[in-house]
Amino acid sequence: MSQPRMPVQSSEESVRSMARRARIASRALAKLSLKARNEVLLAQAKAIEEGRLGILKANAVDCTRAEPDVRAGKMSRAMFKRLQVTEQGIAQMATQVREVARLGDPLGRRLAATQLDDGLVLYRESCSLGVLGVIFESRPDVVPQLASLALKSGNAAIMKGGSEAKETNEAIISIWRECLAEFPELPAESVNLLHSRADVLELLAQDRDVDLIIPRGSYQLAQFIMKYSRIPVLGHSEGICHVYVDRAADRKKAIDVTYDSKAQYPAVCNAAETLLVHQAIAPEILPRIVAKLKQASVEIRGDHKTRALLPGEVIVPATEKDWATEYGDLIISVKVVADLDEAIEHINSYGSHHTDTIVTEDADAARRFMSEVDSAGVYQNASTRFADGYRYGFGAEVGISTGKVHARGPMGLEGLTTYKYKLYGNGHTVAEYVKGEKKFKHRALDLANPFPPERAKASRTVKARP
Amino acid sequence: MSQPRMPVQSSEESVRSMARRARIASRALAKLSLKARNEVLLAQAKAIEEGRLGILKANAVDCTRAEPDVRAGKMSRAMFKRLQVTEQGIAQMATQVREVARLGDPLGRRLAATQLDDGLVLYRESCSLGVLGVIFESRPDVVPQLASLALKSGNAAIMKGGSEAKETNEAIISIWRECLAEFPELPAESVNLLHSRADVLELLAQDRDVDLIIPRGSYQLAQFIMKYSRIPVLGHSEGICHVYVDRAADRKKAIDVTYDSKAQYPAVCNAAETLLVHQAIAPEILPRIVAKLKQASVEIRGDHKTRALLPGEVIVPATEKDWATEYGDLIISVKVVADLDEAIEHINSYGSHHTDTIVTEDADAARRFMSEVDSAGVYQNASTRFADGYRYGFGAEVGISTGKVHARGPMGLEGLTTYKYKLYGNGHTVAEYVKGEKKFKHRALDLANPFPPERAKASRTVKARP
Repeated sequence: MSQPRMPVQSSEESVRSMARRARIASRALAKLSLKARNEVLLAQAKAIEEGRLGILKANAVDCTRAEPDVRAGKMSRAMFKRLQVTEQGIAQMATQVREVARLGDPLGRRLAATQLDDGLVLYRESCSLGVLGVIFESRPDVVPQLASLALKSGNAAIMKGGSEAKETNEAIISIWRECLAEFPELPAESVNLLHSRADVLELLAQDRDVDLIIPRGSYQLAQFIMKYSRIPVLGHSEGICHVYVDRAADRKKAIDVTYDSKAQYPAVCNAAETLLVHQAIAPEILPRIVAKLKQASVEIRGDHKTRALLPGEVIVPATEKDWATEYGDLIISVKVVADLDEAIEHINSYGSHHTDTIVTEDADAARRFMSEVDSAGVYQNASTRFADGYRYGFGAEVGISTGKVHARGPMGLEGLTTYKYKLYGNGHTVAEYVKGEKKFKHRALDLANPFPPERAKASRTVKARP
Repeated sequence: MSQPRMPVQSSEESVRSMARRARIASRALAKLSLKARNEVLLAQAKAIEEGRLGILKANAVDCTRAEPDVRAGKMSRAMFKRLQVTEQGIAQMATQVREVARLGDPLGRRLAATQLDDGLVLYRESCSLGVLGVIFESRPDVVPQLASLALKSGNAAIMKGGSEAKETNEAIISIWRECLAEFPELPAESVNLLHSRADVLELLAQDRDVDLIIPRGSYQLAQFIMKYSRIPVLGHSEGICHVYVDRAADRKKAIDVTYDSKAQYPAVCNAAETLLVHQAIAPEILPRIVAKLKQASVEIRGDHKTRALLPGEVIVPATEKDWATEYGDLIISVKVVADLDEAIEHINSYGSHHTDTIVTEDADAARRFMSEVDSAGVYQNASTRFADGYRYGFGAEVGISTGKVHARGPMGLEGLTTYKYKLYGNGHTVAEYVKGEKKFKHRALDLANPFPPERAKASRTVKARP
């Protein structure tokens, strides 16, 4: 993205009041029972199916508008393909919404329980964040996906999609809001759509009414958002993932894990970009791994040791830039390292703290790698491609965070929640504890069956009797 | 704080390289065992005690320098008092460091365990964040406190204290670093001190090497930091806490909780600033609460209904501004509300999402209040002054966060950690799952006794036999 222009006043006013209304809507959402939220989701899935002709029509307008850009090379074929919505794609949108309805309740989960003293019990319970800001590029299927995850987690959402998908996104949001209107307790402002880039800048300034910003798209988008946001951003930097083949690697696992990490689907952030091989095993294993990668037409960019070990192969010399590049394509950079330390050092220096794997049968080497590599995911003998909310068992994925704060790695519904502390007392004041007349007990309670506040009260009442 | 000036190049260079070195130091820290970290802490406590004369001497220089400002009214007496370090204060610093040594290990805790499939086991484990930036005002005792919490949680720290405490802070950091030098595995760059405001601005731009910024001080400081930081900030907004006396309140509890919340120690963020009283109980309870507050010379600022109910009392009329003011003093604003809804609405509109309490015997009213008030702490029949890390049983308090992301409310060592996912496989690749040849099992494992990776491997080996 280019430098931001100063937004006009009218835009500022409208985003501010939209955020205000979304905040109010979020309070209504947070009160809904799980049953009520799921009912709305099922109704939304049906509404999307029933509204498919309208969505297809709007998408045709977007696609027609984009065609000259594709012909002129201003829009890539891949991006145009992501823009296109098919009847099957709409059916998948509805299916995804129904899947979110099937997930467990992320709200009201008891995360901790402590008896501070007689009759004074503290609980930590999950609750909704409030208002989410979601900024994404292309792919209109993100709209129902994020809207359903937001609703399930009791949050209102303000979204901004790519301008090329404007008509399609609006058609989907209209269907969503019309369906919301059937539920009198649900304000239409639960889901909102922004239109201009100036709106995005204003959104990033609404730190009073927006609780979390989620950028979904390119690294550049995430960087832009992080630079201008006064609101916490659940960011995603690049996906520069590594496979390190240790000296104690099983040969077959080394070949399989490297091939899957790179070639199974190279366009995604959890695909590997760099292969590191221990020098002791490199002469034997590198030719076999490279032969396998070449079956999938993977281009190899090697350091001088790699090239020396593969005299017969066409290998592009790797430059410093290669180690820090997310190809997102059938290209891999390869480096022969002296030992585990050099591998860890390389990953921590050039990687993006996303997901890195060691192939080894040596438990000590694995333990060190997994402890010292500073990434959201550290694997032993498994493909980096497992870094995914569905594969981790989260049911749905909001995104993958490469930041360390709040949620790290694949992020499910839990990432859209926060917690609050609920303290039940019986007229308790701190003065007695400060004076030393009373002492805290700090007894951890069983989360499955914590001391109920009613019993806490009762026990105090008994104590108070003469 | 005023608008930032552009820092000079040399400053930028030096903060950048300091952050880089702190990052490298943090990797050494994260490798230390609990035993090693605690040994260093105990040595630090001793070093502080032994270095007390140097600290007192440095503090005398700071105090002498500050005296003209105090006489000229540029520095408040309260601030001057916080600057002063006594022999007893130094003993307390050492005690606090020893207390941190006694706390449990925040690192390497298993937070979740899932068997994704045969031989494929995923763990979520707590680990250190990396590098903390701490910006604080006055109070040199923050230096050993934060340094010890950072060390215990395996993090390096870059600190910036108030310029008025420069000599004292430097003396403490020197002692800390000299003590670190006795441990060859611990780089001196584990703890660092910045000097100028321009340095702070540079620190806030080091998003590659600094993971979390913690402002400790005024609301203005936190706002300044949040505005200029590209790094996540664990912020603290104002502490505008409320006591709501419901129609079903127990009279004695209403008086006790209000008095303790306001008068027990009014200068702190968890003291109450506003009292809301249900109109049905106000005529009876308000005169009694006000009489009690007047015993502690609390100034009352009331809305018109409050004033009408207390014709004989001297009550300053409350203005719109009062509802949004953190007095931090023996002043309370009082409003009579029509019902629970108006109380919740008032708190969500004017409060700072810190801690709010309802006094009631009505479980339904308590449930609604605690669910709908959007604050880090929601209490029933307990003083707002319980919002504190020690009182919650966290052992130590890094600060109180009024943000919703990462840590909320009183923040202990856990707030200085993140987590990583560790996945143990046996050469697993995603291709089989994508093709549908294998299916995920997603079996939650018992955290106390999760499936060990060794057994996971063994079971796979058995399966692989012909």
